[in-house]
Amino acid sequence: MRVAILMGSVNDYKVVERAEAVLDAFDVEYTTRIISAHRTPSVAEAFSKGAEDDGIEVIIAAAGKAAHLAGVIAANTPLPIIGLPIKSSTMDGLDSLLSVVQMPKGIPVATVAIDGAENAALLAIQILSVKYPELREAMRTYKEAMEREIIKADREFQER
Amino acid sequence: MRVAILMGSVNDYKVVERAEAVLDAFDVEYTTRIISAHRTPSVAEAFSKGAEDDGIEVIIAAAGKAAHLAGVIAANTPLPIIGLPIKSSTMDGLDSLLSVVQMPKGIPVATVAIDGAENAALLAIQILSVKYPELREAMRTYKEAMEREIIKADREFQER
Amino acid sequence: MRVAILMGSVNDYKVVERAEAVLDAFDVEYTTRIISAHRTPSVAEAFSKGAEDDGIEVIIAAAGKAAHLAGVIAANTPLPIIGLPIKSSTMDGLDSLLSVVQMPKGIPVATVAIDGAENAALLAIQILSVKYPELREAMRTYKEAMEREIIKADREFQER
Amino acid sequence: MRVAILMGSVNDYKVVERAEAVLDAFDVEYTTRIISAHRTPSVAEAFSKGAEDDGIEVIIAAAGKAAHLAGVIAANTPLPIIGLPIKSSTMDGLDSLLSVVQMPKGIPVATVAIDGAENAALLAIQILSVKYPELREAMRTYKEAMEREIIKADREFQER
Amino acid sequence: MRVAILMGSVNDYKVVERAEAVLDAFDVEYTTRIISAHRTPSVAEAFSKGAEDDGIEVIIAAAGKAAHLAGVIAANTPLPIIGLPIKSSTMDGLDSLLSVVQMPKGIPVATVAIDGAENAALLAIQILSVKYPELREAMRTYKEAMEREIIKADREFQER
Amino acid sequence: MRVAILMGSVNDYKVVERAEAVLDAFDVEYTTRIISAHRTPSVAEAFSKGAEDDGIEVIIAAAGKAAHLAGVIAANTPLPIIGLPIKSSTMDGLDSLLSVVQMPKGIPVATVAIDGAENAALLAIQILSVKYPELREAMRTYKEAMEREIIKADREFQER
Amino acid sequence: MRVAILMGSVNDYKVVERAEAVLDAFDVEYTTRIISAHRTPSVAEAFSKGAEDDGIEVIIAAAGKAAHLAGVIAANTPLPIIGLPIKSSTMDGLDSLLSVVQMPKGIPVATVAIDGAENAALLAIQILSVKYPELREAMRTYKEAMEREIIKADREFQER
Amino acid sequence: MRVAILMGSVNDYKVVERAEAVLDAFDVEYTTRIISAHRTPSVAEAFSKGAEDDGIEVIIAAAGKAAHLAGVIAANTPLPIIGLPIKSSTMDGLDSLLSVVQMPKGIPVATVAIDGAENAALLAIQILSVKYPELREAMRTYKEAMEREIIKADREFQER
Repeated sequence: MRVAILMGSVNDYKVVERAEAVLDAFDVEYTTRIISAHRTPSVAEAFSKGAEDDGIEVIIAAAGKAAHLAGVIAANTPLPIIGLPIKSSTMDGLDSLLSVVQMPKGIPVATVAIDGAENAALLAIQILSVKYPELREAMRTYKEAMEREIIKADREFQER
Repeated sequence: MRVAILMGSVNDYKVVERAEAVLDAFDVEYTTRIISAHRTPSVAEAFSKGAEDDGIEVIIAAAGKAAHLAGVIAANTPLPIIGLPIKSSTMDGLDSLLSVVQMPKGIPVATVAIDGAENAALLAIQILSVKYPELREAMRTYKEAMEREIIKADREFQER
Repeated sequence: MRVAILMGSVNDYKVVERAEAVLDAFDVEYTTRIISAHRTPSVAEAFSKGAEDDGIEVIIAAAGKAAHLAGVIAANTPLPIIGLPIKSSTMDGLDSLLSVVQMPKGIPVATVAIDGAENAALLAIQILSVKYPELREAMRTYKEAMEREIIKADREFQER
Repeated sequence: MRVAILMGSVNDYKVVERAEAVLDAFDVEYTTRIISAHRTPSVAEAFSKGAEDDGIEVIIAAAGKAAHLAGVIAANTPLPIIGLPIKSSTMDGLDSLLSVVQMPKGIPVATVAIDGAENAALLAIQILSVKYPELREAMRTYKEAMEREIIKADREFQER
Repeated sequence: MRVAILMGSVNDYKVVERAEAVLDAFDVEYTTRIISAHRTPSVAEAFSKGAEDDGIEVIIAAAGKAAHLAGVIAANTPLPIIGLPIKSSTMDGLDSLLSVVQMPKGIPVATVAIDGAENAALLAIQILSVKYPELREAMRTYKEAMEREIIKADREFQER
Repeated sequence: MRVAILMGSVNDYKVVERAEAVLDAFDVEYTTRIISAHRTPSVAEAFSKGAEDDGIEVIIAAAGKAAHLAGVIAANTPLPIIGLPIKSSTMDGLDSLLSVVQMPKGIPVATVAIDGAENAALLAIQILSVKYPELREAMRTYKEAMEREIIKADREFQER
Repeated sequence: MRVAILMGSVNDYKVVERAEAVLDAFDVEYTTRIISAHRTPSVAEAFSKGAEDDGIEVIIAAAGKAAHLAGVIAANTPLPIIGLPIKSSTMDGLDSLLSVVQMPKGIPVATVAIDGAENAALLAIQILSVKYPELREAMRTYKEAMEREIIKADREFQER
Repeated sequence: MRVAILMGSVNDYKVVERAEAVLDAFDVEYTTRIISAHRTPSVAEAFSKGAEDDGIEVIIAAAGKAAHLAGVIAANTPLPIIGLPIKSSTMDGLDSLLSVVQMPKGIPVATVAIDGAENAALLAIQILSVKYPELREAMRTYKEAMEREIIKADREFQER
């Protein structure tokens, strides 16, 4: 089971590294690449066409502004693509969100919240867990831990 | 391999049936349910908790306005959830989109375009194809057919 | 007369504590809980189903992003629910506002301004004052004090 | 128990009458008035100042565009005010929604969805039910009926 | 010739004082008041009804969020009202702008840019200049000075 | 007392004629012109530079999309300019509104609601009434008539 | 001198044909193609890489929703690319506009108004006119004709 | 080959200087001017009418808020105009973007991203390269360098 994380620019890494941390916690192997839909179209094409053969099973594509990366990758591979819209300096991420989520009929991109890197990774894990029962189990454990954590925070808050 | 399609109201079916048509074309078995996060919370809970045992592998949740259905289902199952925002009578679907996609850390919803029912189904198929090679193959064929169709349309357009 | 204040995350407390201060000033008893619609759905369900029997008469639910908490609580209790949209890191609170206010037919949420914690508390008091005349009287006094305060500020401003 | 429904213009009645229908169904007495914050400010003031003495316990104020009616009424009475933003010819109701919900500190307006007339009425009933147990009971019955209706629709949909 | 500047809160003064500076520069007499549409409705009413007799010829009303002040004043006087939308802590001033500018038929508010205090004052002067030729002359001089200033800045920029 | 109404295109006349009807009702003389900031810049310049000498006292400029007409006229005359944003085929008038109202420091445009032609005319009359007492009186009468009309509508509505 | 017009779908032709009409009027040779960034990525790549050698000097790319076509073409050719955002069924074209105009540093797309097909063609002509003096002359003539047309419409309007 | 860069205010220079840097890198001669559509309309007119004779071949116009500069220049010259919307203190640049891009039929403005100064310069170069083969060559080299840079960043990122 392998995930590829692509980002349009190294500047996106401050968001993207939170996705890596989640994948690490679930012991999911991943590779992170800087690939730009607009500046390295040949690399984007080569990567997306070869991803399946390289053993990649899910791809996370992070990009900001007119964020075409997820769509461009999705055009060249039948693999499921997760789009992670990155908030840029203007428009509060709305431009990124709409550029990622409003894909035309035929080429879906599974979009998560603006700067929602953890959720991009969790979604990748949920997708992989369709095939890998151990990840389904780990996800169940994760949800239970999250629940316990909130319940504990609530209890501590009550006892202030 | 089984998909559940949930819709918050029977009114959403005019969009949702386009997802069914895609699943039919790929010979993916599905069940379509009317379940409301707000009006039938117990059914929503029972369904989401039992989905895995019922053999459901991916869930598509379609809802409009303050569209909580996908999130409510996601809270109760480790299965991957696809959110399909439905355009309602005001706000041109922006309320639905933001209510579905902007999920907090820990509970991802794989969101597709507003009224993007075909893409919700295609995404479900891409997710299943991680496990089922025949669906990967079918998706590849689908993409090739889509490509040929556009190329044919282009050729016919040139020859007007 | 008792109010429950729910918040989706302890991070929301910096806004929510302003609601507590107002309730304190009106001597209205309240309980504040950390309950997440998505991360602790069972707690949310148990709380909302039991709220009436616990003597809760109004519930304030504060949440950000795809803010489903108010709606999820409203689904499980006939009590009046006040939705307090919290501004998150992107979208300037618009996602929270639309997720809280645009509720479908049948399940209203009484929504106040983004980060409008004081108003959430004042609205709870106005709702309780339908039953408790002393709160109606206190609200009248509050409004008069507010009026005097502005008039005094105006006078001082004139006399600069 | 009495509700006042105010609308800024008779044109809003096509939305407002849906609120009346809900109040009728719950046997809640109401009065519907055409009162404009801007065109009949004296009537608005007289009404809001006298509402409590007239036995009004909750007020629903419906208005579109720069929708000031709810706020203007709220300024002159300690009663709980429900704001119903009406979609006008431009801006898809966003102007109405923001004008109603974004009230400054001190003067809350309990806002429902754009054109959400039924929910405005249901919220009024939930508020009244704090005092009137029979309305609480009726609301519970309403919610159960709503649930049964969706469950029935779901069953019929399955049996197509 | 006299202008009244109203602001909903003393917090708005950091914007409003820029309007005062412009009126000072044009030697136009003004009075600045803290009057809240919602917190001091009686003062707002008394002021607006008496403004004409007090010798006020134009009114500038500055307010933020659900900014009803300009509309409430406009309801009670035939004087021209200038609306100055103030940017608040959320929504980047869009709520204020729409609440001020989208007035219903019959009650216009002459709206300027968000936080556009100087322009509110200049508009007041242009309105007064319909009656007072010396202000028309002063406005012409102001425009010429502004033009010379830009031309000088351009020349200096060229000569860097 | 004379008003000039400018529109960027003859298509805007279906909105603009409602301004003419109001001016007719108040017996205010006006001239309506088709002048485009972008297509007839010389006419726009000549008109705006000569407007004062032509006896024009207030100018209404109606335009849609990137609506520069009001600003371009304002640049060339010290007269008060009223901007009337026209809803175009996309963006629901938001582009027109922002292009008209968000004027930079130094050049105000008195903006009314999107498609708010009646209010543009009423604002022109309010501005003229600073100089012409008979218009002030007529405006007072207009407001009283408007009030009576709503009160009558309310009474008839009660008596249904 | 040759222009290529690309559209993501034959549905866009009802807008695009207005660009063709303008190019016809200026006797500029063009070719119109149906090429989808997502459905025919290989065609898009082949076209954009070969465009220069095919004698194309400017490219107009029309697309809706998450409109990546212009950006994808721009990635593969040094030619100037004009982006024409097409209004789709939701979001009033805002998604298309932001997806086209908010391009990252390094890959500009010259964006025109939503559905602004005529302007896309006129911009192409202005770009070509840098090289071809006869087009500069034709553009001058076009602007003069447009001016005369508005002046004539104005005169006829005056003479009603 | 000469480019003119116009900015509405010297405050815009912190964005505009990034356009100058790009033009410097391509050895394209340019002149930068402070010209305001609203404050120096005569300069704007004189400049735009004389630009062609002054040997200007492309114009970049940068402005914020109700950004009319590009449109006003475009009205007076057949030269291609590039609009650079500048983010101002409110509305996150949306007002500038819409004011620049939503030009009416007949007067195109080639719009780039909000604060996208580098892209404005690159677009100017692409336009000039229609005539000047050495700029086409330089653009090709620039794109290749950009590609190599991303590939190098990707390689270094892999080797961390």
